[in-house]
Amino acid sequence: MSAGSIVVDLKFAPESVAAALKDGFAGREVINMADPENRDRDLSGCAYAVVWKPDPSLFDRARNLKVIISGGAGVDHILASYELPDTPIVRFVDRSLTDRMSEWVVLQSLIHLRQVPVFARQQREHLWEPRDSHPEAADVTVGVMGLGVLGADAAKKLKVMGFDVIGWSRSAKRIEGIETFDATGLETFLGRTDILVGLLPLTDDTRGLFNADLFAGLRQGGALAAGRPVFLNAGRGGSQVETDIVAALENGVLGGASLDVFQTEPLSADSPLWGMENVILTPHVAAMSDTRAVFRHAERQIARFERGEPLEHVVDRNRGY
Amino acid sequence: MSAGSIVVDLKFAPESVAAALKDGFAGREVINMADPENRDRDLSGCAYAVVWKPDPSLFDRARNLKVIISGGAGVDHILASYELPDTPIVRFVDRSLTDRMSEWVVLQSLIHLRQVPVFARQQREHLWEPRDSHPEAADVTVGVMGLGVLGADAAKKLKVMGFDVIGWSRSAKRIEGIETFDATGLETFLGRTDILVGLLPLTDDTRGLFNADLFAGLRQGGALAAGRPVFLNAGRGGSQVETDIVAALENGVLGGASLDVFQTEPLSADSPLWGMENVILTPHVAAMSDTRAVFRHAERQIARFERGEPLEHVVDRNRGY
Repeated sequence: MSAGSIVVDLKFAPESVAAALKDGFAGREVINMADPENRDRDLSGCAYAVVWKPDPSLFDRARNLKVIISGGAGVDHILASYELPDTPIVRFVDRSLTDRMSEWVVLQSLIHLRQVPVFARQQREHLWEPRDSHPEAADVTVGVMGLGVLGADAAKKLKVMGFDVIGWSRSAKRIEGIETFDATGLETFLGRTDILVGLLPLTDDTRGLFNADLFAGLRQGGALAAGRPVFLNAGRGGSQVETDIVAALENGVLGGASLDVFQTEPLSADSPLWGMENVILTPHVAAMSDTRAVFRHAERQIARFERGEPLEHVVDRNRGY
Repeated sequence: MSAGSIVVDLKFAPESVAAALKDGFAGREVINMADPENRDRDLSGCAYAVVWKPDPSLFDRARNLKVIISGGAGVDHILASYELPDTPIVRFVDRSLTDRMSEWVVLQSLIHLRQVPVFARQQREHLWEPRDSHPEAADVTVGVMGLGVLGADAAKKLKVMGFDVIGWSRSAKRIEGIETFDATGLETFLGRTDILVGLLPLTDDTRGLFNADLFAGLRQGGALAAGRPVFLNAGRGGSQVETDIVAALENGVLGGASLDVFQTEPLSADSPLWGMENVILTPHVAAMSDTRAVFRHAERQIARFERGEPLEHVVDRNRGY
């Protein structure tokens, strides 16, 4: 086994991993853990691991890793669950992943702005009922929480669509043309927000953050239907308290929600969220990692590492992302 | 009656017209035809008319008009139906109208890209069914027909969202960063289009244009679900043949549609379109004219006219828009 071998443990659709591996990592040994033949392979010679929700034993067995590469933008799937070797961890950052996430955020923002669920109900009933007036994007403030690569891109595209956009991140970030807030400005940020977009990593600081207290701080009386704010989350389900979301929808603190992530996935079939008015659920598909793009990204990082250049998108384990 | 009087005949919600008139046209006589008191008023002294689907007798009665100002982007509502005086007709062009139309076009394009109807059905059935892969915007070509103010703005915003965008207009138009075609390039344009967006005025040339022949020229085998193209129309219902749309959806020439306009409005409750899969209907609300904005626009044009400056957005009666 050469020093540059790669172990791949991606809990994606196995066929997509196998197909993408045909073109990927030319000239290198790759051990795909989705292949049953590799179940008992000696991984001690592997230098690189490309992983998404890997088996708990992987890091014990692949004990000489030089770099761990995440198959998704988040790294809580490995940080939270394993004793990790002291090697750099690289997040997945990719144009396609970013564009897909912004598609979802803009789509869901427009769905709530333009009252798609109301018109869909009218369509089911064959009812022609234009309303006299409805808000336009410029009347609505979208507050984006989390201003990494994904949050910054979504904020820019929401702004092009005409929304008033503000941003929040724990430590101050600058995005041209967008007013941003840091930890000390949370109350002000929420009080101006009609559509709250969660794009936060899951860390000790963000676990359970989207709860009743936070929703109560959002603007009431804004331009959306009945003046009620809306909550979108495509970050991590662990950041939200679903019983609080249900209660806020019931008591009018929230007027709607779009959720792609959940505290437990798949979402239980008996969750009340499935059937609630103005709630749109998608099964963690907002920004699917394209397997080929994951491998292209991994190849780029491995090449940088072997040329002695710094890795990109390295996780700060203290921050947790 | 002073020479600068204005007759307003807007078939909008009467309250919105009355409310907007409170702030509009300060110091001028305004005759609001929605007010029953004005039913028999002498209109021969009116210099300006602000109209949307006006009464057939209006132009006979207001026989000394200097300018006719349309309350919407389209002018077929007056050109098609009346013997018109030989005065300039001004179309309504407004930032708000443009932004609202682009909201609708981008929203509907994303709905079809991201298979919102499929996920909505799964939600109704409490089913968690992510798919392994789906196209991103960059995999899909949106072809915009009609490159006036509305079409050009929609094209630019679709491009920001990552779509591959091409444009078509009868006479060649240039839009930075977007490949455009003219009358001679229609076949090539259609053959590359996965999502066709209709933003055309209704003229003799466009009546019935969106028919079986045209749909048959759209790309099959593209990146949308089942490789089938999708048709969006927010221009004029008279440009489409609804029996052909239904047939194309049934025989797979089209994979979906989003329609805001119809040959007869309101759409008949027994149209098969209401209940078809992957068809989204909205009741002519894609870009509602904001009444205050219509009056601001009218004031601007009247001021230009009275200062001896050229009017903006004047209709070419030979082209019909």
